Amino acid sequence: MSSPPLAQEIIRKKRDGESLDPGEIRGFIAGITDGSIPDYQAAAMLMAVFLRGLDDAELGVWADAMVHSGDVLDLSSIEARKVDKHSTGGVGDKISLPLAPAVAACGVAVPMVSGRGLGHTGGTLDKLESIPGFRVDLTVDRFVSQVRELGVCLIGQTERLAPADRRLYALRDVTSTVESIPLIASSIMSKKLAEGIDALVLDCKVGRGAFMRTREQATELAAAIRVIGEAAGKQVTVVLTAMDEPIGTAVGNALEVAETIEVLRGGGPADTRELTVALGAEMLRLGGVADGDDAATRIEAVLDDGTALELFRKLIEAQGGDPRVVDDPAGVLPAARATTAIEAQADGVVASIDARSIGVAALHLGAGRRRKEDDVDPAVGIRVLAHVGDRVTRGQTLVELVHNETGVDAATALVRGSYRVDRDGAGIAAPTTRILEVLR
Amino acid sequence: MSSPPLAQEIIRKKRDGESLDPGEIRGFIAGITDGSIPDYQAAAMLMAVFLRGLDDAELGVWADAMVHSGDVLDLSSIEARKVDKHSTGGVGDKISLPLAPAVAACGVAVPMVSGRGLGHTGGTLDKLESIPGFRVDLTVDRFVSQVRELGVCLIGQTERLAPADRRLYALRDVTSTVESIPLIASSIMSKKLAEGIDALVLDCKVGRGAFMRTREQATELAAAIRVIGEAAGKQVTVVLTAMDEPIGTAVGNALEVAETIEVLRGGGPADTRELTVALGAEMLRLGGVADGDDAATRIEAVLDDGTALELFRKLIEAQGGDPRVVDDPAGVLPAARATTAIEAQADGVVASIDARSIGVAALHLGAGRRRKEDDVDPAVGIRVLAHVGDRVTRGQTLVELVHNETGVDAATALVRGSYRVDRDGAGIAAPTTRILEVLR
Repeated sequence: MSSPPLAQEIIRKKRDGESLDPGEIRGFIAGITDGSIPDYQAAAMLMAVFLRGLDDAELGVWADAMVHSGDVLDLSSIEARKVDKHSTGGVGDKISLPLAPAVAACGVAVPMVSGRGLGHTGGTLDKLESIPGFRVDLTVDRFVSQVRELGVCLIGQTERLAPADRRLYALRDVTSTVESIPLIASSIMSKKLAEGIDALVLDCKVGRGAFMRTREQATELAAAIRVIGEAAGKQVTVVLTAMDEPIGTAVGNALEVAETIEVLRGGGPADTRELTVALGAEMLRLGGVADGDDAATRIEAVLDDGTALELFRKLIEAQGGDPRVVDDPAGVLPAARATTAIEAQADGVVASIDARSIGVAALHLGAGRRRKEDDVDPAVGIRVLAHVGDRVTRGQTLVELVHNETGVDAATALVRGSYRVDRDGAGIAAPTTRILEVLR
Repeated sequence: MSSPPLAQEIIRKKRDGESLDPGEIRGFIAGITDGSIPDYQAAAMLMAVFLRGLDDAELGVWADAMVHSGDVLDLSSIEARKVDKHSTGGVGDKISLPLAPAVAACGVAVPMVSGRGLGHTGGTLDKLESIPGFRVDLTVDRFVSQVRELGVCLIGQTERLAPADRRLYALRDVTSTVESIPLIASSIMSKKLAEGIDALVLDCKVGRGAFMRTREQATELAAAIRVIGEAAGKQVTVVLTAMDEPIGTAVGNALEVAETIEVLRGGGPADTRELTVALGAEMLRLGGVADGDDAATRIEAVLDDGTALELFRKLIEAQGGDPRVVDDPAGVLPAARATTAIEAQADGVVASIDARSIGVAALHLGAGRRRKEDDVDPAVGIRVLAHVGDRVTRGQTLVELVHNETGVDAATALVRGSYRVDRDGAGIAAPTTRILEVLR
């Protein structure tokens, strides 16, 4: 009898818990990329990997094969070290927007390739596109030249970056194989390493509003990310950050741009600024331009002295957006027709806010996507006005829905359900930091 | 967000090792049957079942859902109890051919739906079709009326019997999810229970030439088969039989028909007759026409007095075959052009014969199929002339290849490799029986 086809034999090995050798992994990913491996074999393999895992050696090769399934950007013409940040996704997570210009203003190049929002989490591209005229679909040449000139550019993933990931990701979604540490880690890293960066800061969110619900899962993901980075010879710093209540005040695209501009003016919610400073400091360290406490101080300085804001203005202008947004966000950003206040029903202290429910509420208003092909409404969203630890009185506005008369009932119910207000508030305190751990 | 689609949720539960409830299983199998569940979701589910298993309650429902994915034959117009036999597949396993008429001759109806050979194992349909004119593609009506009139009919699976199994089976083959006890058991039982039988004897082969290599695996399969039978309210007797060396002398379609006729004349190799008698006796017990030792005696009687042979003649005639084959097999069956003897290279005692290699050798000669769509050559095959425990001398013929000048070199190499001849033969004895255990 003829020997069994390669794909089946590779699936069988993984199914039986054996380690795949590099040739087998590269062959499988090549088959995913060129389509010679059909969906059903890919699906069986994904489930086998989900249940059997990948060891460190396999993980490094798997991710590398995915990186090289498409183009790897050549940023060697840029002299500065190139450092990107990736977040595993949160609610109100607009950090990339103030972060990218702040880090670039300190001399580290930030070639940022971002994604769109899906489900309860938002996406950097959608937020940027709420700025009238802003283009995220630049050519690779233009992307590279903008990073060279401004030190920063933010675009969407092209068809040619890690195409194996696109195919696997679509399949994972429909085969219940999403929540697998090696598959998540290699998906993230394949896209990031294809950007041609020197180093990466991964903001790994932990908590009720995150994909990683527990500290244990997040630590496991961080380890897998670092294994892949090491195998690729890239420095990776993982920052575990709390994602229980939404970040800052704004959830929704234009609302988050407005909050970004506050941060870039040296203000903004304390947690949004804290995350920008902490993640920016790690990027400066990896970029080799600052050490220790100096790194945070430098980010704070460019936020406070307007340097980062000026770079954000140039970035917007270079990418076709209306730069006046930085001076007059309310005048330039799209506005929704109505707001609806959701008020506290009793006196007490906010004990918790379920970020996921807030994210889903924003989705109902039109701020996000249920399916990839959905459009988002840039103007709508949620203003979170009472945070964990805040003492509130009956009738006080907890949350403001900013909407276009769509999904208000569903959003209201979700927001109400997301707040837990404790009558006496004993033992409840505002969290002092979102930074749980830094793994350098 | 909308609730996740049913299929993904069911896959997730099985992935996480949870038990599926009957509605979930029936919904999934219905989706497999009507095509609403795509191949990739079916493949992910198969891998999840492979690695997580099905508990007894799930197994009964899974198999029942597969049975009812298509037509279930209505044999209620036949008064006698309807008992079938299924074999998990062996080399030289022609037992269905003498067994069906022998059991029917004792008054138990045998509505037998069989398969074709694949890989190293042969198939009953291919063997029957080596009889010139024999038709296995009868309509269901004709099948039922022949069972009513003759007490026996042998046909191929129709498109409408257990269609879910056909889809799953094809997918299992290409996703490395074949060797799963619950999937094997439900595949076998879905086809058999759809025949509308009252009871089943399962010949579960164990050994190097079988799918179940170890006694432990075979016992596990037997248990799963019995769980399904019990859930369906059908009596199932499982007979574990040894499948190390090929059964009898003949391997190959027309050759096995010739051996069948020897057995139906009261002769034939001892092991072929033993299996026919033992499995037949269990069918008579389940058919309620004989008890205890009497059952075996009755089968022996119809083999020895020509009653079973006469019924075989009628069966062949009813299904369009040339009935003179029972009187003159050599004159009626297709003959190959050549034979090649493979001789012992030294004196000694045959210690073992690897049935699988003999099966693959026959495949090379053209007796079997590599792929479903291949044709078989009815005339070719292998005559196994020296068995385990036989003392042989240098130059004595061990095996005769019966061929049409195709695949002879490969078959020769395989046959040579399959024989282990021990010089002094101390401690080597011919096996006294192939019956390892009967689970009633």
